[in-house]
Amino acid sequence: MTMKTDIEIAQECTMEPITKIAEKAGIPDEYLEQYGKYKAKIDYNLLKKSEAKDGKLILVTAINPTPAGEGKTTTTVGLADAMQKLDKKVMVALREPSLGPVFGMKGGAAGGGYAQVVPMEDINLHFTGDFHAIGAANNLLAAMIDNHIYQGNELGIDPRKIVWKRCVDMNDRQLRFVTDGLGGRVNGVPREDGYDITVASEIMAVLCLSNDIKDLKERLGKLIVGYTYGKVSEQKPVTAHDLHAEGAMCALLKDALKPNLVQTLEHVPAIVHGGPFANIAHGCNSVTATKMALKLADYAITEAGFGADLGAEKFLDIKCRMAGLKPDAVVIVATVRALKYNGGVPKQELNEENLEALEKGLPNLMKHVHNIKHVYGLPCVVAINAFPTDTPAELALIEEKCKEAGVNVALSEVWAKGGEGGIKLAEEVIRLCDEPSDFHYSYELEGTIEDKINQIVQKIYGGKGAVLTANAKKQADQLTALGFDNAPICMAKTQYSLTDDPKKLGAPEDFEITVRNLKISAGAGFIVALTGDIMTMPGLPKVPAAERIDVDDEGRITGLF
Amino acid sequence: MTMKTDIEIAQECTMEPITKIAEKAGIPDEYLEQYGKYKAKIDYNLLKKSEAKDGKLILVTAINPTPAGEGKTTTTVGLADAMQKLDKKVMVALREPSLGPVFGMKGGAAGGGYAQVVPMEDINLHFTGDFHAIGAANNLLAAMIDNHIYQGNELGIDPRKIVWKRCVDMNDRQLRFVTDGLGGRVNGVPREDGYDITVASEIMAVLCLSNDIKDLKERLGKLIVGYTYGKVSEQKPVTAHDLHAEGAMCALLKDALKPNLVQTLEHVPAIVHGGPFANIAHGCNSVTATKMALKLADYAITEAGFGADLGAEKFLDIKCRMAGLKPDAVVIVATVRALKYNGGVPKQELNEENLEALEKGLPNLMKHVHNIKHVYGLPCVVAINAFPTDTPAELALIEEKCKEAGVNVALSEVWAKGGEGGIKLAEEVIRLCDEPSDFHYSYELEGTIEDKINQIVQKIYGGKGAVLTANAKKQADQLTALGFDNAPICMAKTQYSLTDDPKKLGAPEDFEITVRNLKISAGAGFIVALTGDIMTMPGLPKVPAAERIDVDDEGRITGLF
Repeated sequence: MTMKTDIEIAQECTMEPITKIAEKAGIPDEYLEQYGKYKAKIDYNLLKKSEAKDGKLILVTAINPTPAGEGKTTTTVGLADAMQKLDKKVMVALREPSLGPVFGMKGGAAGGGYAQVVPMEDINLHFTGDFHAIGAANNLLAAMIDNHIYQGNELGIDPRKIVWKRCVDMNDRQLRFVTDGLGGRVNGVPREDGYDITVASEIMAVLCLSNDIKDLKERLGKLIVGYTYGKVSEQKPVTAHDLHAEGAMCALLKDALKPNLVQTLEHVPAIVHGGPFANIAHGCNSVTATKMALKLADYAITEAGFGADLGAEKFLDIKCRMAGLKPDAVVIVATVRALKYNGGVPKQELNEENLEALEKGLPNLMKHVHNIKHVYGLPCVVAINAFPTDTPAELALIEEKCKEAGVNVALSEVWAKGGEGGIKLAEEVIRLCDEPSDFHYSYELEGTIEDKINQIVQKIYGGKGAVLTANAKKQADQLTALGFDNAPICMAKTQYSLTDDPKKLGAPEDFEITVRNLKISAGAGFIVALTGDIMTMPGLPKVPAAERIDVDDEGRITGLF
Repeated sequence: MTMKTDIEIAQECTMEPITKIAEKAGIPDEYLEQYGKYKAKIDYNLLKKSEAKDGKLILVTAINPTPAGEGKTTTTVGLADAMQKLDKKVMVALREPSLGPVFGMKGGAAGGGYAQVVPMEDINLHFTGDFHAIGAANNLLAAMIDNHIYQGNELGIDPRKIVWKRCVDMNDRQLRFVTDGLGGRVNGVPREDGYDITVASEIMAVLCLSNDIKDLKERLGKLIVGYTYGKVSEQKPVTAHDLHAEGAMCALLKDALKPNLVQTLEHVPAIVHGGPFANIAHGCNSVTATKMALKLADYAITEAGFGADLGAEKFLDIKCRMAGLKPDAVVIVATVRALKYNGGVPKQELNEENLEALEKGLPNLMKHVHNIKHVYGLPCVVAINAFPTDTPAELALIEEKCKEAGVNVALSEVWAKGGEGGIKLAEEVIRLCDEPSDFHYSYELEGTIEDKINQIVQKIYGGKGAVLTANAKKQADQLTALGFDNAPICMAKTQYSLTDDPKKLGAPEDFEITVRNLKISAGAGFIVALTGDIMTMPGLPKVPAAERIDVDDEGRITGLF
């Protein structure tokens, strides 16, 4: 038997018209803006107008993953389908996929198997144009910076200290390092420059953290584009507001701020909105999306990027803090494969049974469970996302070890069975949502930048502390002098390890995290602590996925996985 | 009294829901895809399925303009509103505005005064995402080219001979000339490169000339991205098909191919779709848009970019030929200002009465009338687009001179009065549509490239002939050797003069046109003949329009003219 691909499963689904999904979600018609028959935007004014009580908030996160990922989105979608089977009023709030990776290696990112959101082709391609809007706003600001310099540079921007890059939603390594403004006097001012992929634009983070248009415009105005000429101590940040750019940028983004409504394969209303990087940004869907799901449903299920050390930490310490959110339960997704990977098994051998390695990898899971329960004070359950290659002995071992440690655990077979495969997990999550909790952040905003990083390293990663390079120390001083020291910290670190070394798997101890760079994202409102080189512009592989994507005469897309 | 701005007038309009406009146009619900409440896409399959007889096709073109333009779009929209007042079933088919100029100098491009299409803010910003889709497809191909070279360059593409540029829908002079692929071995292959504004991408022309998805994909496959290493005689063109890129590009463009439905201020159904440059491309809205309007209405009114020597010539010789269209009547828009400009009055003095200059400029109008009537064999009428600064004596003089020459003429006051101001013009156009016509092209496709250019210069511009530089001659030989000599010619020339010198106004004679470059647009299917430097990436002015654009807390945009 050949297994069906994700797109084949998705295209077999008879979708409900989006107007029906909206009706099911209780969205009044005047707040719905259709984009074709199966997508819509929801007017954010519904948030202000509705007097409904907020539902329960459930966060789906994961252990440190294998390079293939652990199925957080799949589990999130399947859990919602399962809760619907239990007659609960439920919605999911997910991130939007980036166009670049769709044509590169990764393919689609709208769940998998029988736990997907649809129409998956649209969601993976242009969707409702949000990322294009972010790209346009980003590149408008870039054009206005260079035009300002070209037209006389009244603000005294040092072309060597521009920190605002252009962006494109494409995996295009050729654009990582460029020189532009060449070609003589009438064609700009020559300088070194570079491109990021659109999801890495600070505007993505800004859009995702904004509560409304007013907040969005204020944040856009605060974006730092570069610094003035002079010694470090004399340099002044130049902002988008200094360039009078935030109004036009906000006009480009006003519709992108509205959450997008689609459906799961089992017709659960799904909001898919925003998708910032999970390293240089906070990696969660938008605040407006999460709040909308809470307003409309009794259970709102959302996810955060990468493993819990990055995704959940930033969801809880940055997004929840800025938006005033409080989760009621947390699901930690683990797979037999990822546990074996954390136990030292190389990628190519993950399909073979290996109980020893599995047990060796379990401390990684236990560390994340500890963090959620004891650092953040939240109820949690482990979801074992079943793969066809898992053996009964492996699954039994995880269950046994979790029970020994007093950890809630449920097998999730939503990839193969849809909502039916997630009933046990759903029942456990519903139970947890009624448990008492005592939510607090892992650090407070007061205190020095170095203090806050140290607390994340010690409490969440389980290390001794952070070491700031001389360069990072200087930057910490500069940021403090500029008044940014009370911002939360956004750690940019490998997703594969609790440490800053992707090869140190499991649950290492006694390690230090080296912070090489500190930069302020003044619009988003956080300080990014870079522990190494973070790739903000991917490249295409030898044979890009784009080569197999096709569309027939009727407009039906094939080859998009 | 202060005059209202275009956006103020547009925002005062109570729009009909787009479903109502679709109903009025006779579009069955299953062919309509809503984009918000006031925009929709029309499934092109309606073209195949509908058995309705085509309506009459009316082209709106203009004399050689002043730098401010002569109001072709305004006249087109107002004429449709007027025909509706005369109880005719009418639709307009217009070009989509480019985002770049909206933030630069030009502002919006959706008509003006009381003859606009709405929602004007949406139409001028992202609209339904067509231009973003074109940009993404363009930049996917660019990334695949550089990735191919980076991954080993099996096709032997010479990085110095890549003709495919990246694009962005922004006025950004800084990107005209760049070097990319810098930063060492893992970051691409260093080469000289550059950006065009999105409307200048050949994909824009391809999308606008494609009849359906199959045609679109075939054309995308033919796009030439560069040439192989070797001497000129040995160089082979490398196409998008060679890179296996056309399927994914077509997947990105499948929705962009569907015409967009909006409405005029007086609720006439309006299709706004596609917007290629009127110099390096053919400058008309899409073939699918024009055909859809013909299918749905008894009168379909469309426009072509720049003056009639460029816009109408390409509409008739390229678009009509490729799509099998035949216009029934042509409207030539003239203004008192543009006639005075053609009579030698400098820009700053156009607001003052000057009968002598007006008369001196009239031969320009007469030449265009002659071309339409006697070269193309089509009935035509001159529409005098009234400006508040026109004097009664000036308007009377034009009317008198036209009547002396046996030229139909009608005053159009649609900018100030909407459809009511275009009744006389509408009556004349309806009358012309029932006149016999004898349409033929200005040149046939057989014959050499030089022959065809000579015929355009002699018949349409009124010159002696074309002179090809040594370089252009070599290119003509190469294109002929590659089998492209039977393609139509797309002239890239200044819009301000019938000659290739923007300062030679009126109706010059005995001049030659110098062709400096010939390049094949193999996807679009025409040869571009460049008569000088054509700017394909504009810059922002000292104070960009973006600085005054704003959006309030409710999402209402201001400052977009």
